[in-house]
Amino acid sequence: MKISELSERSGVPVATVKFYIREGMLARGEALSATRAEYGEEHVARLRLIAALADVRGLPLARVREVLALIDAPLDDPLETLGRAVGALPPYVESGRQDYPRARAVIGDLGLTYDADFTAVAQLDEALQALDAAGLDASPAVLGRYGDAMRQVAAEEIAPIGGMSRAEAVTYAVLGTALYEPVMLALRRLAHHHLLVERGTAPDPDR
Amino acid sequence: MKISELSERSGVPVATVKFYIREGMLARGEALSATRAEYGEEHVARLRLIAALADVRGLPLARVREVLALIDAPLDDPLETLGRAVGALPPYVESGRQDYPRARAVIGDLGLTYDADFTAVAQLDEALQALDAAGLDASPAVLGRYGDAMRQVAAEEIAPIGGMSRAEAVTYAVLGTALYEPVMLALRRLAHHHLLVERGTAPDPDR
Repeated sequence: MKISELSERSGVPVATVKFYIREGMLARGEALSATRAEYGEEHVARLRLIAALADVRGLPLARVREVLALIDAPLDDPLETLGRAVGALPPYVESGRQDYPRARAVIGDLGLTYDADFTAVAQLDEALQALDAAGLDASPAVLGRYGDAMRQVAAEEIAPIGGMSRAEAVTYAVLGTALYEPVMLALRRLAHHHLLVERGTAPDPDR
Repeated sequence: MKISELSERSGVPVATVKFYIREGMLARGEALSATRAEYGEEHVARLRLIAALADVRGLPLARVREVLALIDAPLDDPLETLGRAVGALPPYVESGRQDYPRARAVIGDLGLTYDADFTAVAQLDEALQALDAAGLDASPAVLGRYGDAMRQVAAEEIAPIGGMSRAEAVTYAVLGTALYEPVMLALRRLAHHHLLVERGTAPDPDR
């Protein structure tokens, strides 16, 4: 396809497509003449990935490059490759700390195997500190509810990874993590409203 | 307590406490002399709420004010009060549209009662469009998994609201929505890693 069709198919403006090519984030098309090139489905898929990360989730270009680098040259260890790629997604925790005892304790209570370098450990630690600071319940019982729900969701999400190449798995893990998060959070808010209405649970209007 | 203790208890610097008082976001303490005032537990709680929204979740001050206004003067309808307050939280969707047919269809499939003005409808619509653009699965089967998990989480979250005043319920709903979201997302990422290790599900290292 021509660059105009590539732009239309991916939803990325032609000037931006050219920018990604110049920046080495998208492969050049096959040259047909000095001024024309032919693009394929792999270009569409790559642009959709870049757009999802940069435009939808607002990743800085350096983070998008990290993900692309792991797709183009996965590390020897497939799980470390996935962990690093997902670690390029927000939220970005700039603690400078090496250890997260608060998160480690909770992860232990939940019986999860974890990699201490995985950014989700630091993200959990920061989120737990925010609960503590606000005086919200961070007891094992409450955190266990979230842990159970997420384990259930995660089990179905990881199932297809077994049949994938490392590059496919990175794309799937990054896109899936980034794009189902907002779906899940919106559904949680909608479920609150639904259940408040359905069960007639509402704050006391007279207080 | 003195302003210095209030600052320490809430984790908010004294200069910032004074700023919130000048801005009308925090009530003045009880004047003890021309230069000293006494603060109580309600000041600590208010500052923790403001800090959770502004510092932890990064809400613009105008959005924090919206939440505070709904706590100080709840609307007649308790559920509308909660919906508006939670609607002050990110993500902010600037679609300018009045209708969200994509989200409505999914909400219908999930059997949820909803209020069309609720921002979570627009948020879901945007999130679904991102799935579509990236070519991810947005079938009823997949969305149903997230809907089921969130309904289960939400059922336990709303339970305490019945015994609260409208002001208490707004505080609880806003803080709970804002601060458990990052916990849940971090646990989802940790559950992925755990299950990949536990089940030996990994992408093919030879591809």
